[in-house]
Amino acid sequence: MTDSLRVAMIGHAFMGAAHSQAWRTAPHFFDLPLTPELAVVCGRDAGRAAAAAGRLGWAESAIDWRSVVARDDIDLVDICTPGDSHAEIAVAALEAGKHVLCEKPLANTLAEADAMAEAAERAYAGGVRAMVGFTYRRVPAVALARQLVAEGRIGEVRHVRAQYLQDWIADPEAPFSWRLDKTKAGSGALGDIGAHIVDMAQFVVGEPITDVIGLMDTFVTSRPLEGASALLGGADGAGGAVDGHATVTVDDAAAFLTRLGSGALGVFEATRFATGRKNALRLEVNGSRGSLAFDFEDMNVLEFYDAAEPSETAGFRRILATEPGHPYVGAWWPPGHGLGYEHGFTHQVVDLVTAISAGEQPRPSFADGRQVQSVLDAVERSASDGAWKSVALPAPVG
Amino acid sequence: MTDSLRVAMIGHAFMGAAHSQAWRTAPHFFDLPLTPELAVVCGRDAGRAAAAAGRLGWAESAIDWRSVVARDDIDLVDICTPGDSHAEIAVAALEAGKHVLCEKPLANTLAEADAMAEAAERAYAGGVRAMVGFTYRRVPAVALARQLVAEGRIGEVRHVRAQYLQDWIADPEAPFSWRLDKTKAGSGALGDIGAHIVDMAQFVVGEPITDVIGLMDTFVTSRPLEGASALLGGADGAGGAVDGHATVTVDDAAAFLTRLGSGALGVFEATRFATGRKNALRLEVNGSRGSLAFDFEDMNVLEFYDAAEPSETAGFRRILATEPGHPYVGAWWPPGHGLGYEHGFTHQVVDLVTAISAGEQPRPSFADGRQVQSVLDAVERSASDGAWKSVALPAPVG
Amino acid sequence: MTDSLRVAMIGHAFMGAAHSQAWRTAPHFFDLPLTPELAVVCGRDAGRAAAAAGRLGWAESAIDWRSVVARDDIDLVDICTPGDSHAEIAVAALEAGKHVLCEKPLANTLAEADAMAEAAERAYAGGVRAMVGFTYRRVPAVALARQLVAEGRIGEVRHVRAQYLQDWIADPEAPFSWRLDKTKAGSGALGDIGAHIVDMAQFVVGEPITDVIGLMDTFVTSRPLEGASALLGGADGAGGAVDGHATVTVDDAAAFLTRLGSGALGVFEATRFATGRKNALRLEVNGSRGSLAFDFEDMNVLEFYDAAEPSETAGFRRILATEPGHPYVGAWWPPGHGLGYEHGFTHQVVDLVTAISAGEQPRPSFADGRQVQSVLDAVERSASDGAWKSVALPAPVG
Amino acid sequence: MTDSLRVAMIGHAFMGAAHSQAWRTAPHFFDLPLTPELAVVCGRDAGRAAAAAGRLGWAESAIDWRSVVARDDIDLVDICTPGDSHAEIAVAALEAGKHVLCEKPLANTLAEADAMAEAAERAYAGGVRAMVGFTYRRVPAVALARQLVAEGRIGEVRHVRAQYLQDWIADPEAPFSWRLDKTKAGSGALGDIGAHIVDMAQFVVGEPITDVIGLMDTFVTSRPLEGASALLGGADGAGGAVDGHATVTVDDAAAFLTRLGSGALGVFEATRFATGRKNALRLEVNGSRGSLAFDFEDMNVLEFYDAAEPSETAGFRRILATEPGHPYVGAWWPPGHGLGYEHGFTHQVVDLVTAISAGEQPRPSFADGRQVQSVLDAVERSASDGAWKSVALPAPVG
Repeated sequence: MTDSLRVAMIGHAFMGAAHSQAWRTAPHFFDLPLTPELAVVCGRDAGRAAAAAGRLGWAESAIDWRSVVARDDIDLVDICTPGDSHAEIAVAALEAGKHVLCEKPLANTLAEADAMAEAAERAYAGGVRAMVGFTYRRVPAVALARQLVAEGRIGEVRHVRAQYLQDWIADPEAPFSWRLDKTKAGSGALGDIGAHIVDMAQFVVGEPITDVIGLMDTFVTSRPLEGASALLGGADGAGGAVDGHATVTVDDAAAFLTRLGSGALGVFEATRFATGRKNALRLEVNGSRGSLAFDFEDMNVLEFYDAAEPSETAGFRRILATEPGHPYVGAWWPPGHGLGYEHGFTHQVVDLVTAISAGEQPRPSFADGRQVQSVLDAVERSASDGAWKSVALPAPVG
Repeated sequence: MTDSLRVAMIGHAFMGAAHSQAWRTAPHFFDLPLTPELAVVCGRDAGRAAAAAGRLGWAESAIDWRSVVARDDIDLVDICTPGDSHAEIAVAALEAGKHVLCEKPLANTLAEADAMAEAAERAYAGGVRAMVGFTYRRVPAVALARQLVAEGRIGEVRHVRAQYLQDWIADPEAPFSWRLDKTKAGSGALGDIGAHIVDMAQFVVGEPITDVIGLMDTFVTSRPLEGASALLGGADGAGGAVDGHATVTVDDAAAFLTRLGSGALGVFEATRFATGRKNALRLEVNGSRGSLAFDFEDMNVLEFYDAAEPSETAGFRRILATEPGHPYVGAWWPPGHGLGYEHGFTHQVVDLVTAISAGEQPRPSFADGRQVQSVLDAVERSASDGAWKSVALPAPVG
Repeated sequence: MTDSLRVAMIGHAFMGAAHSQAWRTAPHFFDLPLTPELAVVCGRDAGRAAAAAGRLGWAESAIDWRSVVARDDIDLVDICTPGDSHAEIAVAALEAGKHVLCEKPLANTLAEADAMAEAAERAYAGGVRAMVGFTYRRVPAVALARQLVAEGRIGEVRHVRAQYLQDWIADPEAPFSWRLDKTKAGSGALGDIGAHIVDMAQFVVGEPITDVIGLMDTFVTSRPLEGASALLGGADGAGGAVDGHATVTVDDAAAFLTRLGSGALGVFEATRFATGRKNALRLEVNGSRGSLAFDFEDMNVLEFYDAAEPSETAGFRRILATEPGHPYVGAWWPPGHGLGYEHGFTHQVVDLVTAISAGEQPRPSFADGRQVQSVLDAVERSASDGAWKSVALPAPVG
Repeated sequence: MTDSLRVAMIGHAFMGAAHSQAWRTAPHFFDLPLTPELAVVCGRDAGRAAAAAGRLGWAESAIDWRSVVARDDIDLVDICTPGDSHAEIAVAALEAGKHVLCEKPLANTLAEADAMAEAAERAYAGGVRAMVGFTYRRVPAVALARQLVAEGRIGEVRHVRAQYLQDWIADPEAPFSWRLDKTKAGSGALGDIGAHIVDMAQFVVGEPITDVIGLMDTFVTSRPLEGASALLGGADGAGGAVDGHATVTVDDAAAFLTRLGSGALGVFEATRFATGRKNALRLEVNGSRGSLAFDFEDMNVLEFYDAAEPSETAGFRRILATEPGHPYVGAWWPPGHGLGYEHGFTHQVVDLVTAISAGEQPRPSFADGRQVQSVLDAVERSASDGAWKSVALPAPVG
């Protein structure tokens, strides 16, 4: 029997459901050195938290995260709340000696991210571990891409081409939500989905983004309020509501050019207005010896071009990343039996629990998360004054 | 609180793992009218059964399926053993008043399938329900295909083109296994994977296959024995082993032409020798008003051609079957966040539990499974004498 | 300066346009040992033939093919008429000592094909060459497929999967035409497009089809007559017209299972009812060491799976068959600048002229064409009595 | 009989071959109001020019473009030389009253482009017409994209995503050539292939690029000289050759962000280092009502997403742009019989000859070409100082 790892999860919406599935599932497919125990789920509303506990499989529910974080019988705090509360909860949990898994983006501001990374560093000495949840790293095809780059299969990296394309607000009549309110969400497409491509690109090529110039845009600046919000003259109390409409205060889309550590050239784009693209998280990397291409809408596939092959038989290969030799895959099904979105979360649990048990630093660390944040911050600053910006903190990637 | 449904699972290999994941997961994503309880898992070896119970999440383990089936505290028996034991277990369970979920193919012979379908029919009156596990019906893209056909979106069906292509024994040096031994497996590619395309095709078009002519082949008739089998002079005791090799007694590949109920023309092919195809379960249906195409290697996609569209803008659409309005999808993730192989099993649990609770006949029923078996039987007979055969039992499909 | 090759073309419709473009274009891209001279085009109607000469670039026009074939100043007769006149024209031309290029299918009946092959054999001794026009062999991606098979890159062939899918009469209201009249067209989908996949499959794998069992169908047996035909009570005089409709006397679709020389298993399908498929000539070949896949709707691509590659990096490669080292490509454009449908005809001219000049037998020969015909004949016979048939003439392929 | 249009072509390399094929072919497939006469081809070397005349089908050859341009029996001058001679030849031809077709990019500098556009404007009044050769506009799938945008099928344009990816110098050992010498080529990837995506994007969306910020890079700054160049210590006399290597003075890759007229956001990238991408000219446009996507490596296909479709059946459609109703296609082959690279050049001849005959301004005009040049110029300036630049001349697009 392995020791247990008693988990408290704060927040129980979309990410809470994904994390719960991961905590429940990981031990059934992987040999974990510690057995996760779904101890308590915490939410602001008692009734909804209790319902979530039942539905998601947690032993108890609670409404005060501070007392949860302080409990002696909790080993790890899993933060699935919106970004504006990450810093406060994470720092408190780390100071209380709990391991922390924090959803991305690490924080809504660089200052918060700094505080969190510093708290994680202080806690590390005491055996406490912290990790940020960029789960797309753990899609087998993406982890395979990293492996091939690390093995030198594509040579020196020249180009990184990353896009995260969604379309859920492409319709100008799509209603206002808290995600479009900067005071709550911190950022729009840039922080929500741009963060993922920054992390994934840096992870796969193993090099930090060093310089950026960006462009941000809000195509639809006023949106209808729905239901209660409209009656109350605001979206969850959003100011500026006029005639049943509220003002969008975050970016709908962001694009940026970058330099990476070795001199590679990056082109990044994140948008919620790419009509017809539902979750097209795409990465293409071109190197001196080969290329790789990935699109989450076909998530079990990695395309690989090997320039060492004679030109007569060279071509992008559609590798079905479902072979036993592919990262994480051996624990699942036979070749060709693809995985889905939530498997990345299960792999995250596996890697986190393994690192905690081994006393190692799980990656991406809070320092990694802060570095992503510093890239996004540089993009925002460059978009605001139209000038190139250096990224403050390139160090921890690699 | 809903009532519980106490499940006993017989067998705990590949299918046992998939079924367990489904029983565990369904209640967390769907509102089930009954709550599955993973009561007991049964296997031939006590130690391995106990280990499986721990790994797969069952409360107890057992080694005698007969006593399990007889237990008062079991409501449903889930049969995940090889095909040669399906009939005996299923009939016993039905007679003991247990609901039954039986993995496909329903049985290794048509006679067994008959007995099972009759037992299911007898038990039905007593409120007992039986279902066979053709889970590919429950991949959202496939269920959507059925929906579009039923709505008349492709008009009158002209062509059905179905393939199930794998390659796990394409290498002549791949070792012998029980799956290549007719006395154990009953059939090779035809029964193992051909059964899936027969069920899927009939399900999607809503018409039974009525006539067939087939061709079956064994490309590699002798294969090396591995490890203990080689030392013992046989594969799990397989006769005919010579010089560390055993004789393959099942088909490596099968192909057949068919007629379907309405006069549509079908072309089916199942093989384990399609080098590079890992789990390419493909269906294309052409109708007078449109067409549909599916490939499990890209399982979240359904291609749809609508001939009502002007030719200038007509084309096969790549529908990402991940919208809330698609079958089963609303319970999972946002658009573009694809599902994986095991989700079909979860949907199977949902449909089965719902039907049991409502007192309805879950589909595919044992009669449906027997009809698939009768198609396979006709293919085998036609392959043996080179003449067209009528399918004995077209009735229950539709 | 090279000697000229004076060409007479009989027929000037779709195929006449394609052949003319090839005769005009080949000398500008390839170094031909003989220079084609577009001497005369022949058609039944003087005015239309003269117009065709002007439009298609022929020096003269004529209306009597017999006198054209007899002319001393003609070296080669290019037959682009419907199949029912191929035999008569070809035999006359060969006997007059002219080289012959004859469109596929070689003839409408096996007896005619026999006569043509025998005439070609007789003429061969006198230095006269004959070739049948299966141009799809000369699409670079298809020629590359042949090359890879011949080099052993896919090993022993196990499966051949060939489809030719069109949809131009999928609509039941599509009008009657001579192509649907057996007395004129000889055959429907089987002879028109099924012939292509038979030739292409045998060419690529280098093995003849030896045994077949087929199924043929006419989904829509009566179709509206258009314009003058309707007024005259017939389609170009077709009997059996009733109420402005005529009876379809050819197959709309054909499917057949085959054995090939080495024991490979073939599945073939030709149809004009595959809604949404415009010219989907597809071939997939699975061998013990690899696989190949082609679809004419993406004609510059050959997919290749190399089983020698480790499973972690194996996958179907999308080879853009536009490299200088690919067959025929060096004469055209840089990599990635694809070719189109008519290029196959230009390559046909190149190969034909080269063989004539070298005194070699151009392939596919009339004997090859007859062998394809004998396969189609066997399919028709098997479809009519439901029994397997041997192909009479497997010899010349390979 | 139509009047003839007597053409002189200056230059006979890659572009000369493509233009010659177009002049020869157009009258055979399209009803042209004027009949092109391939009068004279002009090159610097008498022997090579004479050979080119023979190979490419021109009546005569010449070596002095000035005297060719002055000839009374020439109606149109077709300029296929490198960019550094475009201005001089074009201005002279226009002043001599000849129509001009000039290959892209219009010129190597904005000043030259200005002079050319002004010369074209002056000549216009005298009935002389000038056009620049952005042939990708005339690929049917691209022309269809323009049509759909113009019809409002994708609504208001939000995103333009354009890439032109090649890999012919991705290998650091690929030899030096004049295309890598700024004094001859003017620019590298930006002017050579970036020009195409600028023109295509503006054409399809019907809006000019107004502001840009770019990044340019030269990954490999020194390359080996081949053959004679190496012996002579330079590439065609390139200065700076050391030890058999010469210095690359143009960009290997360029990327830029843009604003378009209506406020859409553009991301552009042109590179010769995208290993495995041979001629991947890609455009994706996202609008409020739909999206379009094109990739020249699959040039007969346009992908179209129609957001008016219910989400259950919406998806990117793979429109095979080979229907009679698609632009230019009616003159060619039946549906599904794709076109190739050179067909765009034939369509260019058709449009040019038609405009000349009708007295209309053929597009893209020299003013259009100059506007593209002004975009590239702005990119270069922004890449040099890291600041956003306005495009000087947005006017003529639309």
